[in-house]
Amino acid sequence: MKRTPKSQLRDVIARNLRLQRAERGWSQERLALESGLNRTYLSAVERSEQNISIDNIARLATALNIEAWMLVKASS
Amino acid sequence: MKRTPKSQLRDVIARNLRLQRAERGWSQERLALESGLNRTYLSAVERSEQNISIDNIARLATALNIEAWMLVKASS
Repeated sequence: MKRTPKSQLRDVIARNLRLQRAERGWSQERLALESGLNRTYLSAVERSEQNISIDNIARLATALNIEAWMLVKASS
Repeated sequence: MKRTPKSQLRDVIARNLRLQRAERGWSQERLALESGLNRTYLSAVERSEQNISIDNIARLATALNIEAWMLVKASS
C-alpha cells in the first residue's frame, strides 16, 4: 500500500467545519464539547493537518445536526 | 476524547463502494490497483470493519472518477 498523500479533501472538510461553526456562532471548544472530540484535534482538522476518519466525521455531523456528506462536499 | 463508536456511516461507504464497483464490473483487486490501496484493506472497508480516513476516501474517489461526497452520501 503506497503512502497516502495529504488530500485536498482535507481542505474541503476544514472549510466546511469553520463555516458550520460560524453559522452557529460556535467556538472550537463548543464543537469539541458537542461532539466529544478533543479541541486540539479539531483545531488540527480545521488546519488540514489531521487525516480525519469517517467515524469522527460522523460524530461531527451528529453534533452539527447535518448529514455527513455535507462536510465532505465542496461548496460551489 | 471519548472512544469513537463504529459509525453507521461506515455502512454507507461500504455500500457505495460495492455499488460503484458493480457499475464498472470491477473486482476489489481492480479497485485496489486503481487506487493504490491494499485489497485486504478495501475488503475490510466494504465490510464496515475499517474506520477509513478522508485521504483514502479521496484516493478511492479519484480512482472511481467521482466526487468524494458521493461515497459518503446514503442513496435514497
